[in-house]
Amino acid sequence: MEHSSEPYNLVTPIGLLGLGVVGSAVVKAIETREKLGDSRVSLDVVASVVRDASVKRDVPVDSSKISTDPNSVIVNPEIRIVVELMGGETPAFEFISRALQAGKHVVTANKEVMSKRGSELLTTARTHGVHLLYEASVAGGIPIIGPLMNDLSANKIMSIRGIINGTTNFILTKMAHEGADFDDVLSEAQTLGYAEADPTADIDGFDAMYKLSVLARLAYQTEVPVESIYREGITKIHAKDFRYARELGYTIKLLGVVQANQNLGLLPRVHPALVPLGEPMASVNGVLNAVEVEGDLVGSLWFQGPGAGPNPTASAIIGDIHKIATEAVGKQIIRKELEPFVIASMEGHKCQYYIRITADDRPGVLANVARVLGDAEISIKSVLQKDTDVDNNRADLVIMTHPARESNMQSAVGSIRALDTVACFDSLIRVETYNS
Amino acid sequence: MEHSSEPYNLVTPIGLLGLGVVGSAVVKAIETREKLGDSRVSLDVVASVVRDASVKRDVPVDSSKISTDPNSVIVNPEIRIVVELMGGETPAFEFISRALQAGKHVVTANKEVMSKRGSELLTTARTHGVHLLYEASVAGGIPIIGPLMNDLSANKIMSIRGIINGTTNFILTKMAHEGADFDDVLSEAQTLGYAEADPTADIDGFDAMYKLSVLARLAYQTEVPVESIYREGITKIHAKDFRYARELGYTIKLLGVVQANQNLGLLPRVHPALVPLGEPMASVNGVLNAVEVEGDLVGSLWFQGPGAGPNPTASAIIGDIHKIATEAVGKQIIRKELEPFVIASMEGHKCQYYIRITADDRPGVLANVARVLGDAEISIKSVLQKDTDVDNNRADLVIMTHPARESNMQSAVGSIRALDTVACFDSLIRVETYNS
Repeated sequence: MEHSSEPYNLVTPIGLLGLGVVGSAVVKAIETREKLGDSRVSLDVVASVVRDASVKRDVPVDSSKISTDPNSVIVNPEIRIVVELMGGETPAFEFISRALQAGKHVVTANKEVMSKRGSELLTTARTHGVHLLYEASVAGGIPIIGPLMNDLSANKIMSIRGIINGTTNFILTKMAHEGADFDDVLSEAQTLGYAEADPTADIDGFDAMYKLSVLARLAYQTEVPVESIYREGITKIHAKDFRYARELGYTIKLLGVVQANQNLGLLPRVHPALVPLGEPMASVNGVLNAVEVEGDLVGSLWFQGPGAGPNPTASAIIGDIHKIATEAVGKQIIRKELEPFVIASMEGHKCQYYIRITADDRPGVLANVARVLGDAEISIKSVLQKDTDVDNNRADLVIMTHPARESNMQSAVGSIRALDTVACFDSLIRVETYNS
Repeated sequence: MEHSSEPYNLVTPIGLLGLGVVGSAVVKAIETREKLGDSRVSLDVVASVVRDASVKRDVPVDSSKISTDPNSVIVNPEIRIVVELMGGETPAFEFISRALQAGKHVVTANKEVMSKRGSELLTTARTHGVHLLYEASVAGGIPIIGPLMNDLSANKIMSIRGIINGTTNFILTKMAHEGADFDDVLSEAQTLGYAEADPTADIDGFDAMYKLSVLARLAYQTEVPVESIYREGITKIHAKDFRYARELGYTIKLLGVVQANQNLGLLPRVHPALVPLGEPMASVNGVLNAVEVEGDLVGSLWFQGPGAGPNPTASAIIGDIHKIATEAVGKQIIRKELEPFVIASMEGHKCQYYIRITADDRPGVLANVARVLGDAEISIKSVLQKDTDVDNNRADLVIMTHPARESNMQSAVGSIRALDTVACFDSLIRVETYNS
């Protein structure tokens, strides 16, 4: 398959499943490039499938090329590459499968289907001798799938750590900078279009979980089912946690992390974490995404950019289309039989913890809490007493622990909750551990 | 060239031109992967060419596979991929050309030959239906060539701005943090092996210029001859410039920048610059490299990591080898005839300037300097008078200007030097302009 020395300027016919904001951005970007004559390869949007053909669309697509019939794209003999932009598992899984079976290459931005059914789909692609690319499914316009698939393939990946959900990062950044409450910032994010009407997928960490699963499978060439990923959202974080965290030298971010540990296996986790203010991750603000990849040869790499938005996503999608059109997609490598990674449970995770408790403001309370932690073999690093409420005789107790095991901490949490002197166990946030 | 559904596990035979620290790291990394059976593709180092075969080498290579005869690799019929790690233009250009002509793919880490002769070599590769990859030639282990070549191909690149020389960044970081003088830090860098015995290529900006030329050609698909790049090194920067810069809210970095401007064309430049302390670029310290790419679709992307070192470089080299072995290299696209970019001259560049002058400490001196600047249509933004030397009746005058044209500034510099009251024109450093 040595490439020819001839200019490569055949028109590549593509079809779109979905013509919403991302689909429209893809069509417009293609159109602009075609007009200027400066695209690397010539693309022609032959057909688009939409849910409702009567919707007015601000895209340069002839209405005759828009249909509600998925088959007008999936089995259209004219189409070489199908671009799936519907999102969700159903019916995307079926449509992608059928397109691959029909011998079409597929480019998708769909993290949910790639996390839940990606292995099946990649197998189908291989079986039918076609490509399935998904750069746009993780971290928007940031090239991260491509580098993991190709540029970094010499490395054993030690860890991947990222801010891979723009909505929650927008919310957490606002909370950190403005001292605002979660609900208020969520409403604002919804008004601005940064959060959906039903924000569950973002704020409960599902979106980050899907993306982490996709990254982990690729980096470790092993199945990382979404069910195996520890997941915790950001809804329980309060404005005062940011205030106390800052006093301790941290901010709070929703991280997706997967680390390979020789003894424990692979631990994938999505949860809010205290990040030291000096770490670059602490300065990734607003809807930006960032991914830190640590490889045994290359060391620590940092990728940062817009994690969402129609144009950054279109950049990733068209990049994938170009790769297929220019034959820049390699064979899917099936590695020699290796022992598959064990997916570790969160129980064995070890880190420092930030604890916030509303407790009675009287002598002996801290001693009680400290005893419970000590019984669970958790040492206290520092304690702050804050926001004393004289009327109710209450105060905030903010405790930073030394590194402790998750299982020990969970049992301690139960015991602390049961203490008479503790009115409320408000927050338990893990502190992210950096080697440096 | 649809890929097959079979596992791809043929052994790919490679040959090395050069077996120094990077070559040894490549061999060791391949060996480790082969032993563990976890490499994506099986590689076999069939032959290596060295300058002096009698040198003891700490690499797992049989001495029978080491030769001083370049032909043992270049025209060896067993070898499929030639890895060039000699550096420099001569004889690397000839060796790479001959290997390509002999039908071998070539992977190189050589920025000098890729900047000076890259177009010829890429044409030779295309003519002979083979690949020439060069990820390792720029920014060490950071994937930047791959993303520009593939992942970001949908974008019109607006600008590339980077810290792409680790040696100078190490020196500037030390100077900034320790208030040390250039000569002292250079000696230290040489002792630590971060700077060569002859440091010219690094400290005078040649290395960064080569890398910028390679990035610019790829990003803009146009020739950017090294002679067309404005280049200025770091030797004239003094410890006090860092002190004054910090007072003004900046640090000093050696930047390589190329920007596309519709009216002026493409302006490639390598020079020290004042970078606002709040910009991420200001926090890229030590031997780290960072590259910021701005694309019209994707917006601003940030890549950071180890810009040099045997293992990061080996990561990039083996990544390129894997791409060839797995057929993940696309056709070289020859775009439709476009108007080539004009390479703009530095004359038209506009930015703020930092000026440091040693002047007589008496009334009227600033007025003289201000008049000269005003005559050149340059307004002053701020002035600091520093380090008054009472004995000699001298003081440092530190002037920050508003944005001005380079040509105006250069004529003003001449006039200021000619002033009786100015003992020495010490520093002229451009301030890098960020949109945000």
